[in-house]
Amino acid sequence: MLLGPGDDAAVVSAPDERVVVTTDLLIEGRHFRRDWSSGYDIGRKAAAQNLSDVMAMGADPTGLVVGLGLPADAATGWLDELTDGFRDECDLVGASVVGGDITRCDLVVVAVTALGDLGGRAPVTRSGARPGDVVAFAGRLGHAAAGLALLRAGLTGPVELIDAHRRPRPPYARGPEAAALGATAMLDVSDGLLQDLGHVAEAAGVALVLDPEAFTVPPVMREAARPLGVDPLEWVLSGGDDHALAATFPAHVRLPEGWNVVGHVIEGEGVQVKGLLLDRGGWDHFRE
Amino acid sequence: MLLGPGDDAAVVSAPDERVVVTTDLLIEGRHFRRDWSSGYDIGRKAAAQNLSDVMAMGADPTGLVVGLGLPADAATGWLDELTDGFRDECDLVGASVVGGDITRCDLVVVAVTALGDLGGRAPVTRSGARPGDVVAFAGRLGHAAAGLALLRAGLTGPVELIDAHRRPRPPYARGPEAAALGATAMLDVSDGLLQDLGHVAEAAGVALVLDPEAFTVPPVMREAARPLGVDPLEWVLSGGDDHALAATFPAHVRLPEGWNVVGHVIEGEGVQVKGLLLDRGGWDHFRE
Repeated sequence: MLLGPGDDAAVVSAPDERVVVTTDLLIEGRHFRRDWSSGYDIGRKAAAQNLSDVMAMGADPTGLVVGLGLPADAATGWLDELTDGFRDECDLVGASVVGGDITRCDLVVVAVTALGDLGGRAPVTRSGARPGDVVAFAGRLGHAAAGLALLRAGLTGPVELIDAHRRPRPPYARGPEAAALGATAMLDVSDGLLQDLGHVAEAAGVALVLDPEAFTVPPVMREAARPLGVDPLEWVLSGGDDHALAATFPAHVRLPEGWNVVGHVIEGEGVQVKGLLLDRGGWDHFRE
Repeated sequence: MLLGPGDDAAVVSAPDERVVVTTDLLIEGRHFRRDWSSGYDIGRKAAAQNLSDVMAMGADPTGLVVGLGLPADAATGWLDELTDGFRDECDLVGASVVGGDITRCDLVVVAVTALGDLGGRAPVTRSGARPGDVVAFAGRLGHAAAGLALLRAGLTGPVELIDAHRRPRPPYARGPEAAALGATAMLDVSDGLLQDLGHVAEAAGVALVLDPEAFTVPPVMREAARPLGVDPLEWVLSGGDDHALAATFPAHVRLPEGWNVVGHVIEGEGVQVKGLLLDRGGWDHFRE
């Protein structure tokens, strides 16, 4: 940050002469609930999903600006909590909030824009996947969806899954790492792996074939799923909000620990699991 | 724009190696009403106020990202109108919308972030005003406030003033021009001239003395004010949302047409009009 809050605009360093920019709008009742998440949680989550988008381009986050709509009934201290959440999440990647705008609103609105620097690398887009590439992911899948399902069922545990809904833990460093390793395509898994990989298939004009045996369902998730009558693999393949990174790599690339190879790219279209063609609708069709 | 919508993030050129960034959150019912402004108007206005913030730093806008909350009752075509408004306003300064996020919301929310490039110039902040400088403004003052007062009174004209509320016309080119002329401080008048100049006085640790005789109240505003029982100079000095630029310049600078000198900088604090000390509360104290 070269010039911070207090002027009409902030000034952020952009040594690469290009700046990566992404924005997300989080609305109370749709993206979070104040009775399920603290202000601190919401700050962490709002920062995380935008920082993750920057890193999914292979860039390093540099600064965030935040527009905040705040109801009159927001408790004193709630804004401080939110600010602390933003700060702590940004600290993980060496970025900071450089400016913002606060206004009264009947419900909490958090509008986040994150900037990043490519450090001389080409941005990793969705369109570069090629037949022969492997498909891999880093980070967690299905944890946030499991946590949300538990909250909706009125449960308060297992806390590991509930917390995953409240505060995602994106594998930030894997983004620039994947870019340096030669990832041909990459994205942040925000809507569910099948749906998001569908964007890669469409942008690249290829088909992605996933091996369901390649996914590990952790015991905590398996146990949480049973009383809810859910197949936990559904959370893994279709649950969003963990902000894992998914990428395609040329087959010769040796992937470091943290990357899980779960499929490969062929000619064709769409995402296939065990030979079944899925469309963007995802799981419902998978179950047919 | 180097990489546009359709990926996790966009990539925008930043040849200066610094990027100017500003954000604003516009909430239905607070910043606009859909029965008073069309989608097109709201797009123009939301773009304008952010582009103006960038230019008030002495920078040229390069790209915008837009987060949009849209109720289910927003008519088909409303989003197209909004998009057209953004495009037409951005066209005025050679910028464009490079990305965004759309989500359902019970009321319309428009979150805009604008980026800009300084082109090698130093950013013009609020803190550089020095005793001996002149105070000047470019653009319109009080028009939008007059238009809003008319709408609130249930009136539909004069259309020139109503339109000023719906679509501000910031004097965009004056921003980089002022930077090149050596402006010592500059800002975008969004909350009213007295209040905004108060920010300059505070940031610079100086006093600004304004001469009320230096302001011209146009006949259309004088006539509109009479039936409302308002002193039109109140609109000029305290009305926001026209996005005029206000700046201080060394006294020796020859200001081109379009700039209106209305005061000067002395040692002290606050903004004075006719020798009366004003605080940020602005007009109320001015009337005392």
